[in-house]
Amino acid sequence: MSNRIRNAALRSKVMSAEEAVQFVKHGDKVGMSGFTGAAYPKAMPTAIANHAIDAHARGDQYQIDLFTGASTAPDCDGVLAGANALRFRAPYQSDPVMRNAINAGDIMYQDVHLSHSARQITDDFYGRLDVAIVEATAITEDGHIIPSSGVGNNVEYLDNAEKIIIEVNSWQSEDLEGMADIYRIPPGRGRGPIPITESGQRIGTTYIDIDVSKVVAIIETDLPDRNAPFKPIDEVSQAIAGNFLDFLEGEVRAGRLTYDGYVMQSGVGNVPNAVMAGLLDSKFTNIQAYTEVIQDGMVDLIDAGKMSVASATSFSLSPEYAEKMNAEAARYREYIITRPLQVSNHPEVIRRVGLIATNGMIEADLYGNVNSTNVSGSRIMNGIGGSGDFTRNAWISSFITPSVAKDGAISAIVPFASHIDHTEHDVMVVISEYGYADLRGLAPRDRSRKMIEVAHPDYRPLLEEYVALAEAPGRPLHTPHDLEQAFSFHQRLAKTGTMLK
Amino acid sequence: MSNRIRNAALRSKVMSAEEAVQFVKHGDKVGMSGFTGAAYPKAMPTAIANHAIDAHARGDQYQIDLFTGASTAPDCDGVLAGANALRFRAPYQSDPVMRNAINAGDIMYQDVHLSHSARQITDDFYGRLDVAIVEATAITEDGHIIPSSGVGNNVEYLDNAEKIIIEVNSWQSEDLEGMADIYRIPPGRGRGPIPITESGQRIGTTYIDIDVSKVVAIIETDLPDRNAPFKPIDEVSQAIAGNFLDFLEGEVRAGRLTYDGYVMQSGVGNVPNAVMAGLLDSKFTNIQAYTEVIQDGMVDLIDAGKMSVASATSFSLSPEYAEKMNAEAARYREYIITRPLQVSNHPEVIRRVGLIATNGMIEADLYGNVNSTNVSGSRIMNGIGGSGDFTRNAWISSFITPSVAKDGAISAIVPFASHIDHTEHDVMVVISEYGYADLRGLAPRDRSRKMIEVAHPDYRPLLEEYVALAEAPGRPLHTPHDLEQAFSFHQRLAKTGTMLK
Repeated sequence: MSNRIRNAALRSKVMSAEEAVQFVKHGDKVGMSGFTGAAYPKAMPTAIANHAIDAHARGDQYQIDLFTGASTAPDCDGVLAGANALRFRAPYQSDPVMRNAINAGDIMYQDVHLSHSARQITDDFYGRLDVAIVEATAITEDGHIIPSSGVGNNVEYLDNAEKIIIEVNSWQSEDLEGMADIYRIPPGRGRGPIPITESGQRIGTTYIDIDVSKVVAIIETDLPDRNAPFKPIDEVSQAIAGNFLDFLEGEVRAGRLTYDGYVMQSGVGNVPNAVMAGLLDSKFTNIQAYTEVIQDGMVDLIDAGKMSVASATSFSLSPEYAEKMNAEAARYREYIITRPLQVSNHPEVIRRVGLIATNGMIEADLYGNVNSTNVSGSRIMNGIGGSGDFTRNAWISSFITPSVAKDGAISAIVPFASHIDHTEHDVMVVISEYGYADLRGLAPRDRSRKMIEVAHPDYRPLLEEYVALAEAPGRPLHTPHDLEQAFSFHQRLAKTGTMLK
Repeated sequence: MSNRIRNAALRSKVMSAEEAVQFVKHGDKVGMSGFTGAAYPKAMPTAIANHAIDAHARGDQYQIDLFTGASTAPDCDGVLAGANALRFRAPYQSDPVMRNAINAGDIMYQDVHLSHSARQITDDFYGRLDVAIVEATAITEDGHIIPSSGVGNNVEYLDNAEKIIIEVNSWQSEDLEGMADIYRIPPGRGRGPIPITESGQRIGTTYIDIDVSKVVAIIETDLPDRNAPFKPIDEVSQAIAGNFLDFLEGEVRAGRLTYDGYVMQSGVGNVPNAVMAGLLDSKFTNIQAYTEVIQDGMVDLIDAGKMSVASATSFSLSPEYAEKMNAEAARYREYIITRPLQVSNHPEVIRRVGLIATNGMIEADLYGNVNSTNVSGSRIMNGIGGSGDFTRNAWISSFITPSVAKDGAISAIVPFASHIDHTEHDVMVVISEYGYADLRGLAPRDRSRKMIEVAHPDYRPLLEEYVALAEAPGRPLHTPHDLEQAFSFHQRLAKTGTMLK
């Protein structure tokens, strides 16, 4: 038995996932750890999936409602969706099998602002949570949980569930102990402020204290997180990174930013990672991240002495960087803090630290409304995640995107966004490989001119044609639209396979 | 000369508005007081408008960019728009003349979250502010400003403008002194928390301290705020108020709310006012308001002993209630606090006090996306105001609306909102005279069923028809849409004058 289970009483609860699955009943609401492929339980999801398959083969009903921090992995969301083991899913997912099941109508999915998700559980908007299944890197002498590669909503799920199942994963470095900063936001009204004024501040404990009597099972695992490699940086990503840096330099020239004053939030993905690579050779130093997820690019910035602290709720690293993290967690925990999702994404702290938010998107329209979630309005891709939390409370909110997708068949700039997750009121800067559209202080008609400048040249005439139509004499000119043609790009794509005429 | 100007040095600056207009140049950026028809300058706008008319008659250019707290009045926004004296306007307006000028393309208007607006000025997103023109109820011995019936963005405009013009309005009660609570949120990063944990807390001064050397003119006025009467409560408003109360009672039954635990935010208007009247006869007591604007209904709740404290940034009262406020300001200031807009609408405090937000809207779609601003996508009505600040950070966010407008020609529930100010991620409850749609914890397809229940019966078959089309076999079923028909209600309205077939 692993010496990571330091509490003697809890050692008696060790069993296999196949045994522990008895505690997860049909109709249960289950809160799992897991955030962007990190720290999700490695054994129980497969056991639950197999249990569901067996039940369905017998003609029995067996489905659960699943809540996590954010996305997990094929051996969690993937197997559960594949086994038809889920009725409902919140607050975020990014798994291909699950995405297909949602779009096929087989799983009901609520796509929630991540900063709101735990609160909606604790405040009983979903009903009572039955089981919490949480990965740990160790259990302390007192039965407290040392989080592994992420914290997510673990605190609230552990506090609110009737039963607790812990997976102790020896693949995770024991030196992660000391990285987490666990702080509970008291429920209800009249509570005090969250006492964080700088990204690097620690305000809590390194462990999650739990009600040990609720623990019904402990499972030992030795399995890696879903660590996917980032794509090599291509020309388009490099150009976007260059334009992002130009934008930052412009803020310095305008006297609004200093070279040692950049507080970063960055969405996850290849393009954000390229932007971070661009910062390595920039004049910016003492960069602080108050963000959701630590990526390879931030590790590079730390190693290069450019980033002084990174606060997040989890890691999402490539296999190579995950290995480095596991080997050197004792060093990295001097620079990295993992926090509960409610804290990493809290409007109060985001607004206070004065960060520049940078997120990806599916499409934006001429006025800067951004679609982050639904392709052509209906088909869920992943979810809004934390992009709303950061965009809405950032000092400056930016979005980065290649101007086209699918070899030019899809334009990232469209007349009317087919789904809106971030409104014109929240989006300040949109950056593509063609430049940056600074929408601050501009009325809608001035914004549309800026947005066309960052569209792909092939699409600019089509966008200008739409603007001319929408601004035709006699029409209202505040946010000019022609509702007959507003979705013409999407309709053309559906009919011909391309948004181009 | 009024004895309200208690600073001797500043008495020498008293002049007429016609003289003071010399300080407002073509191209200037001007920050004015004014919030929802209260506390706007009464003399300078007309003087500026006349100055513009004269200049234009001479063939000279004369236009300014105007920033306020929120809406003003016909003798401010109205005269300025009518005189073609404005190039740009932010962050909110609701004047009929100005609205027409914006929709005609004659004024560029940026519709900004009110909690963001001051920060965007102080952080120089618009460029340097030239002049602040602010109404006061008095000037203290030290030259400090006692705000009149609202605070809005006055602090930041006074701090950041190069020149200051003060209007001392003796129509406003001198007993308003003591009602305002002026607290500066320091700019930049790393600042501390805002130390408000309950609506009624005072954390600042009763006056705005200014750099007296920047004062170039003081003007004496004796003119009322724009106090418009509320409409008598009709059957539809009464039914909405009843459904809102049912919703609150449901929260009590579910154990999420207590009868003495309701913290209110309420948008401005006849329907919200009816909801407050409904609370008079309810079991709720010790109601606290942490809101933007004090309305008649809140004064009634205070007088009835049902509301223990109301925090806001201004009043918007009927003539009768304005008279009562002016007569009894000394009593009301025990219950009412007026704060800078940045504080009244700050995400940090809104989230902390745990309020239930209740705002009006133009339309909502089947999935709970809400349009608060643009009729049929293009024609600005007023602006988002503070509805985003409260909706996004509320404990529970609700919207109230009659199910139809224009005698049934316009449905408040449509397939796809023609402009989106509040996304599906932010909207929890939608209430009409037919009931309340509780969207919490629901995936989009379940939400559409609830939304149809609160639509007008005449429109339900049309909405069901759209749902059937959008959910046709083979289509993606996460947020089902048919983009060809998404705006069919609006297109029908444009062609036939009604959304009904």
